[in-house]
Amino acid sequence: MPIKGNLIILSGPSGTGKGTVCKKLLTLNKNIFYSISATTRLPRPGERNGREYWFLNKKDFERMIKGNKLLEWAKVYDNYYGTPLEKINSLREQGKDVLLEIDTQGALSVMEKAADGIFIFLLPPSLHELEKRIRGRGTETQEVIQKRLDAAVGEISLGTRYHYLVVNRNVTEAVSQLNAIITAEHCRTERNIEILDKVKNEEI
Amino acid sequence: MPIKGNLIILSGPSGTGKGTVCKKLLTLNKNIFYSISATTRLPRPGERNGREYWFLNKKDFERMIKGNKLLEWAKVYDNYYGTPLEKINSLREQGKDVLLEIDTQGALSVMEKAADGIFIFLLPPSLHELEKRIRGRGTETQEVIQKRLDAAVGEISLGTRYHYLVVNRNVTEAVSQLNAIITAEHCRTERNIEILDKVKNEEI
Repeated sequence: MPIKGNLIILSGPSGTGKGTVCKKLLTLNKNIFYSISATTRLPRPGERNGREYWFLNKKDFERMIKGNKLLEWAKVYDNYYGTPLEKINSLREQGKDVLLEIDTQGALSVMEKAADGIFIFLLPPSLHELEKRIRGRGTETQEVIQKRLDAAVGEISLGTRYHYLVVNRNVTEAVSQLNAIITAEHCRTERNIEILDKVKNEEI
Repeated sequence: MPIKGNLIILSGPSGTGKGTVCKKLLTLNKNIFYSISATTRLPRPGERNGREYWFLNKKDFERMIKGNKLLEWAKVYDNYYGTPLEKINSLREQGKDVLLEIDTQGALSVMEKAADGIFIFLLPPSLHELEKRIRGRGTETQEVIQKRLDAAVGEISLGTRYHYLVVNRNVTEAVSQLNAIITAEHCRTERNIEILDKVKNEEI
């Protein structure tokens, strides 16, 4: 039986670059699998079930909530969003790492449920830089931008509750730090206790 | 003031390849400095003070013991061996990492004194492989080889007391894991609490 894979939670304020960093990490490290969220919102043009999201109807989603089949979930306006547990668990049992990209609110819920998760907080180099990045998207109104920045200050204070802090000065550096964290976590003694016996008794 | 550097302790049974791994790591990562031991034994031909060892006389060494200026020390037959603290501390204050390569007995002493050390245990892939490596040196008698192997079994059990276990299947892989551990430890939240305030208040 392989050693159980890790659950890696990457979070941080909106605009920090979580998505870009995740995508690059996944192309670099083929042992990591991305956890796809479930939602009851309708697919947008070009979105595919099981790629961007698992698209569920309200009844099925509520059944998952009741059946404790979600690691976390939230209702935003009229739509549910959540993280299905089953796929995560089966991948981890196969020794694969699962990467969960999630907002800071969602990460707090996961902290309560997944005590063995590795929580990584992605930071912008400064609020000034964060503002530039959100503005750069060109999709938000001034009001939304200000709301996000105000929220970011509070969210950054939550960084103390994570295991690791990674500053996203540039994507390459951030991805290489994330990858180092993932490698290091695989070397942690508590994950490798069995190796000590194996070395004493047999070839590994 | 820079963030304090880490003290990295690499230990493991004799013949595991600590020396080779350390040398390669030091060429790869220029922010790591090797801690040079002190000894009262006489320099062998070709050895230089401050390179292989700090060569001290007995009186000076005993003065260091009394003055609490050694992280650990031991007397082997008639000679003292130990780890001077001053250089380690000053490098760490400058934000540099210090690498301490030490036998398992020494590592146990360091655990008691350096609570913030990062303890990494280097393992051979198997006892069979360890035997081959010790034999390969061609410098030990059969009696010494057997003694080392017997000792290794007990030493491997001490692995549970380290933070990380690295199996030295091949040097490149082991060094890359060590380097990942060192990078990851720099990202640990407790080392970077100040960054959270900096991001909120200024460019970093």
